[in-house]
Amino acid sequence: MPAYQAPIRDTLFVLNEVLDIQHYADLPGFAEASPDLAEAVIGEAGRFASQVVAPINQAGDAHGCIRHADGSVTTPPGFRQAFTQYRDGGWTTLTAPAAYGGQGLPHVFGTILEEYLNSANMGFAMYPGLNEGAISALLAVASEEQKALYLPHMVAGRWLGTMNLTEPHCGTDLGLMRTRAERRDDGSYAITGTKIFISSGEHDLAENIVHLVLARTPDAPAGTRGISLFIVPKFLPDADGRPGARNALAAGSIEHKMGIRSNATCVMNYDGATGFLVGEECKGLSAMFVMMNAARLSVGVQGIAVGEAAYQNGAAYALDRRQGRAPTGAADAAAPADPLIVQPDVRRMLMDARSHIEGLRALAYWGALQVDLAHHGASPEVREEAEDLIGLLTPVIKGFGSDCGFKTAVDMQQIWGGHGYIAENGMDQFVRDARIAMIYEGANGVQAMDLVGRKITAHDGRALRRFVGIVRDACAGADPALAPLALSLSRALDDLDAATGALLKAAAKDRNAAGAGSYAYMTLVGIVAVGWMWLRMAGIAQARLAQGGGNALFYEAKLHCAHHFAQRRLPEAAFLRVQIEAGPDTLMAIPAESFVSAG
Amino acid sequence: MPAYQAPIRDTLFVLNEVLDIQHYADLPGFAEASPDLAEAVIGEAGRFASQVVAPINQAGDAHGCIRHADGSVTTPPGFRQAFTQYRDGGWTTLTAPAAYGGQGLPHVFGTILEEYLNSANMGFAMYPGLNEGAISALLAVASEEQKALYLPHMVAGRWLGTMNLTEPHCGTDLGLMRTRAERRDDGSYAITGTKIFISSGEHDLAENIVHLVLARTPDAPAGTRGISLFIVPKFLPDADGRPGARNALAAGSIEHKMGIRSNATCVMNYDGATGFLVGEECKGLSAMFVMMNAARLSVGVQGIAVGEAAYQNGAAYALDRRQGRAPTGAADAAAPADPLIVQPDVRRMLMDARSHIEGLRALAYWGALQVDLAHHGASPEVREEAEDLIGLLTPVIKGFGSDCGFKTAVDMQQIWGGHGYIAENGMDQFVRDARIAMIYEGANGVQAMDLVGRKITAHDGRALRRFVGIVRDACAGADPALAPLALSLSRALDDLDAATGALLKAAAKDRNAAGAGSYAYMTLVGIVAVGWMWLRMAGIAQARLAQGGGNALFYEAKLHCAHHFAQRRLPEAAFLRVQIEAGPDTLMAIPAESFVSAG
Repeated sequence: MPAYQAPIRDTLFVLNEVLDIQHYADLPGFAEASPDLAEAVIGEAGRFASQVVAPINQAGDAHGCIRHADGSVTTPPGFRQAFTQYRDGGWTTLTAPAAYGGQGLPHVFGTILEEYLNSANMGFAMYPGLNEGAISALLAVASEEQKALYLPHMVAGRWLGTMNLTEPHCGTDLGLMRTRAERRDDGSYAITGTKIFISSGEHDLAENIVHLVLARTPDAPAGTRGISLFIVPKFLPDADGRPGARNALAAGSIEHKMGIRSNATCVMNYDGATGFLVGEECKGLSAMFVMMNAARLSVGVQGIAVGEAAYQNGAAYALDRRQGRAPTGAADAAAPADPLIVQPDVRRMLMDARSHIEGLRALAYWGALQVDLAHHGASPEVREEAEDLIGLLTPVIKGFGSDCGFKTAVDMQQIWGGHGYIAENGMDQFVRDARIAMIYEGANGVQAMDLVGRKITAHDGRALRRFVGIVRDACAGADPALAPLALSLSRALDDLDAATGALLKAAAKDRNAAGAGSYAYMTLVGIVAVGWMWLRMAGIAQARLAQGGGNALFYEAKLHCAHHFAQRRLPEAAFLRVQIEAGPDTLMAIPAESFVSAG
Repeated sequence: MPAYQAPIRDTLFVLNEVLDIQHYADLPGFAEASPDLAEAVIGEAGRFASQVVAPINQAGDAHGCIRHADGSVTTPPGFRQAFTQYRDGGWTTLTAPAAYGGQGLPHVFGTILEEYLNSANMGFAMYPGLNEGAISALLAVASEEQKALYLPHMVAGRWLGTMNLTEPHCGTDLGLMRTRAERRDDGSYAITGTKIFISSGEHDLAENIVHLVLARTPDAPAGTRGISLFIVPKFLPDADGRPGARNALAAGSIEHKMGIRSNATCVMNYDGATGFLVGEECKGLSAMFVMMNAARLSVGVQGIAVGEAAYQNGAAYALDRRQGRAPTGAADAAAPADPLIVQPDVRRMLMDARSHIEGLRALAYWGALQVDLAHHGASPEVREEAEDLIGLLTPVIKGFGSDCGFKTAVDMQQIWGGHGYIAENGMDQFVRDARIAMIYEGANGVQAMDLVGRKITAHDGRALRRFVGIVRDACAGADPALAPLALSLSRALDDLDAATGALLKAAAKDRNAAGAGSYAYMTLVGIVAVGWMWLRMAGIAQARLAQGGGNALFYEAKLHCAHHFAQRRLPEAAFLRVQIEAGPDTLMAIPAESFVSAG
């Protein structure tokens, strides 16, 4: 069975040394997050993930969820006990506001917990994960009464939230939505329709399930501007705010999926269910975007998290499994064969994994810090800059992060050879689980379109200019000992600048041009962003090693990973630029029917 | 349920126009393969694959194979009937020599049949597929008596072969093998040991199963030079050559795998089973290499085949599914949304798929022709050249072909969005099935090492010089209308030349250097080889369009795919070269233990 140890040392390095969160001690929440408390919380989160949640991961995948004839759903063995421990340990309250029973810690702590849980057990992590998203949405747009009624329960983890967007004919294009909401005399709405792919849609982990549902009111305009958001609880709160009458909604079935099988992904049927409008009619989509932006960052973290877990098990196998000899001659002549770790091509996969996962971890935590700064930054300028940066990089963290997580899982399975293909060894579960992160919360192609179609053009390109400027400054200010790294990164920046110019110029002439280059562009921004994190981390490692403190192996490994990324990934920027500059012509040339006819 | 139509038009294009097989009509087997016969055979193979084998693919995956208490194994519903039809249709005899009941058609026809079967149902295709490999090995190294006893049954498909190499502790490194073979007085051997991952190891499709087993005789030298090859039949042939006494071997279990679940991958226990030596003692590995080289080409074809099936279903969905609008404005204003095919990023994935799969199909068929020429070429020079080229490109067709097949399956699943993650839609099966082709018959990293460690250095680099020379000549002789294509390919060749020089120079100093660059090198040779095929295909398409015959859409699509590959894949050569030139330093720097400790 795969094992998992939370990378606490690396987390603390990013938090304390790279992001220097003590620097923000004057902001709400950060004051409470003293270094001692941070270390205690993170250590405990790591232990919980490794010891309670990871051990039920593989069996949960094999067992799946069971829907009974009455529509109730049982989660896999051990999930209920583990979630009870999770709730009783106060983990659902970590970053929520104190007003609703939360601990009010910075968002970055939620991201760390999220990483650990998803590494340990992605299917499990999605139960509290969807709740977090629902809490953010209600915090942003619900009325004070609604917040008072629902949030204390949700923050405490007694009630869990979901998000209901997709319908059978309506995924990316939410304007096609058909679920109806008809206003009743008492101000509530009757919700009728079918939603699919509803993660954590029905289960046995909570007293109540709070569905956030997008639906269309009778006279609403067509398209996305006619969509409203509703709270549709499984049990309607009674006069005391306790779960009362059963609402007219049910899980019609559980989807059979490639992975994340321990999460109950449901078809949800609403049959005149009672719903409560959140915010105003026809303003549902903007409310849902609050939830989706948070969810997109979370999905990027899921990719990184599964990649980390796969890496740990790939590395362990490479040290354990003995086949063949080192190219330089027997490394362990007394044994019949050397461990795989002596093979350069096995190390290529491990170094690719480390340099991507550790780099992306830093980027994801940095992103979480920007979310905090966007809300609580000391000045409007700080808040605007943070908002710009996280807006720009949300699709990149989601898309590039999940792509790299999946690639890592595939590579780590590869190290296991034929044994990686055998279900009992658990490596294929990482691949199957990681795969969904590239698809849901907006497929990665949709993220790429969000980046090129909206994020790099908004405010006349202000966010991208800020980002490129920051990375340029980092290159210019780099320790001379890191010159090759800084050079590699600044060359990638040159390619990014050129690619941006080419893309925008082509898009002005041909509206297919943005989409034709979007995926390569997202990848290009991703490698620049991760390269920037490596330059920052290498700078710190270089300084620590010069000071001669302890942990030399840790800091040396950081330098090696940074150079690996600079030598073997950043140069892809030039290739990505060529793809972007190629434009849409070969893509759009073939008539649609020729794709399906034998010609 | 996914559908599959054999790409007969494309097959005939490669066979008749690209490879011009009529040109070889004076060689054995080719004379019989008249254009009419070829078209009839290929058409019938396509119908069989599409109509008989494809419909049982998805249910076979869901159902899997069942091992009963007595060790017998039942294949999924419909498999036995389909295999009976396959055998009765004479498909097992297609390329086997007439002396053993075969039709003696060129090897390339076997490759075409193999492609269609694997597209339709990879788990099914592996039952006859392993038999083909076993037949090749026996043809190459068995005694006349053994051939006469076994081959007529195997060619007729009444008995099916397997190959038994892997043991629990011994995969890539066959020198660690422990299965024992002790000579008995009657000249037979007692075989004892456990083999794992044995494809088609036990089933209900044939009267008898002919296991080819590698084992070690008592006084044999250590390592691979002590391995011998044995025929170990499930039922010992009686005096009349019919299945007689049950041999002391059994399937101990069926592996639970990520994919190819309809193939019975068995743990085989040999408990003093009677085996018959093939060839000489301690010469087993070279015999097995005959089988492995054929099998490696077949695995490359499997990757391409599953990629093709996934492509067809990705394209069909892109034309059918309606979400959103074309970037250029509504393409079908009367409908609520446009089909996905209007989206440039969806077309990017489809064009990537086509340009890789169609290019690799041409390369695989070309490779099969080289196998024919290596055996039957008119002169020693022709045979040597063919041997050189197919020896060089076998690891590339296996490794790069299966990588591209998997990538294609993942991309096509991506087009389906969330619906691609749902088991009932079948797109995840393509991903799970294609995954194994990167692993078995030598993991792709092992293929890469074979390429850089043996193939490019043998005979002082003769094979690579030949290959590069042929591609250079093709660039120089290209139609001026195809200048951008030829330029893109010759730039990739320049990168290949530089990378080769860098790799060999570094390897002379540091024995880790070859492995450090091997994977990127394999990919680089792969894109050059496929790029060469596109230049050839584009040349023909260009000429046909100039002549103004029919099929303009087909030939125009070929040109678009060629340009797509030239613009978006060939430029990766420069990036791969950079990776190769980076050398082994960052890979080997971190101490082994640091990969598994938190530092």
